[in-house]
Amino acid sequence: MAVTHVTDSLLADALEEIATDVDALFDALLPVPQDARARLVEAMRYAAIGGGKRIRPLLLRATAQMYGVDRDVALRAGVAVEAIHVYSLIHDDLPCMDDDALRHGKPTLHLAFDEATAVLAGDALHAFAFEVLSDPAVRADPFVRVELLRALGEASGLRGMAGGQMMDLVAETSHFDLPTITRLQQLKTGALLAASVEMGAILGHVAAEGRTHLRGYARDIGLAFQIADDLIDREGDAAVAGKAVGKDEAAGKQTFLTLLGPDRAREQARMLVDQAVSHLADHGREADLLRAIARYIIERDH
Amino acid sequence: MAVTHVTDSLLADALEEIATDVDALFDALLPVPQDARARLVEAMRYAAIGGGKRIRPLLLRATAQMYGVDRDVALRAGVAVEAIHVYSLIHDDLPCMDDDALRHGKPTLHLAFDEATAVLAGDALHAFAFEVLSDPAVRADPFVRVELLRALGEASGLRGMAGGQMMDLVAETSHFDLPTITRLQQLKTGALLAASVEMGAILGHVAAEGRTHLRGYARDIGLAFQIADDLIDREGDAAVAGKAVGKDEAAGKQTFLTLLGPDRAREQARMLVDQAVSHLADHGREADLLRAIARYIIERDH
Repeated sequence: MAVTHVTDSLLADALEEIATDVDALFDALLPVPQDARARLVEAMRYAAIGGGKRIRPLLLRATAQMYGVDRDVALRAGVAVEAIHVYSLIHDDLPCMDDDALRHGKPTLHLAFDEATAVLAGDALHAFAFEVLSDPAVRADPFVRVELLRALGEASGLRGMAGGQMMDLVAETSHFDLPTITRLQQLKTGALLAASVEMGAILGHVAAEGRTHLRGYARDIGLAFQIADDLIDREGDAAVAGKAVGKDEAAGKQTFLTLLGPDRAREQARMLVDQAVSHLADHGREADLLRAIARYIIERDH
Repeated sequence: MAVTHVTDSLLADALEEIATDVDALFDALLPVPQDARARLVEAMRYAAIGGGKRIRPLLLRATAQMYGVDRDVALRAGVAVEAIHVYSLIHDDLPCMDDDALRHGKPTLHLAFDEATAVLAGDALHAFAFEVLSDPAVRADPFVRVELLRALGEASGLRGMAGGQMMDLVAETSHFDLPTITRLQQLKTGALLAASVEMGAILGHVAAEGRTHLRGYARDIGLAFQIADDLIDREGDAAVAGKAVGKDEAAGKQTFLTLLGPDRAREQARMLVDQAVSHLADHGREADLLRAIARYIIERDH
């Protein structure tokens, strides 16, 4: 019981800290200029500050701190990953994509501003992520920076998030089997979650061959995360989720849920979390936060 | 006369070579996958292959070759810059932005495919640019790669192209003076042209303080390029330009042309080109191609 209690407060504190820290760094890195770009930066700030669970920066920092990486350095890299995540939500919410009205409990960016500004703010946050990582403030060592940039580029493009989103568009009108849905989700959501863990390890100077167990952890929580998202979409409360729910069913979209049914999906998510935790078996207490994040991923309600 | 003739054929050959080489490298780097991402990659290829003057890769390679950089290395970096340019055209052409129907003489991407695919293909080309530059195939030296990434990130984001595009949106409804229009164009078009020259110099291991004259050259041709674009928009032929013309006037948008009038604008462009060429005074014949590009920029009809 004592261990559970410590782990719970470890997670609660880490979630609170990362939310505060990510907001503060976005605020510092995105001052509103005194010219006609002001509206663009206000739009970027509207989308980037004050919303979201910040799971990706949390994963990155939790991994990095296992290897003694400075918290501020890990935060900078985490903000870069979060900027990619935020830009993808902005573009995903556009009328020509998911046409969503609500995000993190407030109107989506194209409704709060306008569509053209939303497209541009997404593009500017995309470039911002790469600017942050190429800045020596992350790390003077150019090899580390270029490895971070490479991991993030690969995870966000064709072989990652954007590729997965395209498969997701196609999924609305095609019949995909379970392996294809798994692949879709590994790209769409999994790649950026995995990159967060990977980038924490890169900052910790863990050689590529020493990251296998971390990759296993990341892959498993990525799929568990998506199943949890599907369950929230089906059973969640829009007020708690801060976004529209019931969308997958309305769109007739195939998901883990439609293929497995809710009971097997829930069981599968639990199994994946256990498996994720088992990848960390060689680590001691320093991996407790990663273990807690794995459990949180399927217990969250938003 | 002989010199002019040599310079002309130097430019003509270089324009032809870069067009062929850029197409070939996009083709090699963007194979169509055998899964549901196929449509996304086909859209990326539709926009990236077989169109455009390839001024940015040409500038990058012409600068790099002054310092003995391998042509294929310069091409890779040039394709990264061109990917950013292409993604910006795709997003610019969207109905919520300029709502254009014609680009490089064929239907714009959102008409040839659909809006959602166009948004995603732009995003994927954006990430692709950073993937190409972080790959050791460009340069094994991580410092060079990270400097390239930094130059491109800065030129494409808030402090570059995306910032300029936002100012451009605002320009449709605000009254800007000449210094503000100049600033707008330096960000919107100039930043990426300047980054092309800068990246050529980075590949050539020219120290930042040794790039001042190249920055002067790039800044001047950037503004000349925009004035030429304004003139094409006002006086050009859509069939030759491969895109709609007369748009600025229809939108009541302020440009160099509306502020200066056509005669002074043309004179200003010529002056900028002379000034650009004068920045190269310390170079010999190895800078002939950069000189020829400067002249071409205001003589082109598309």
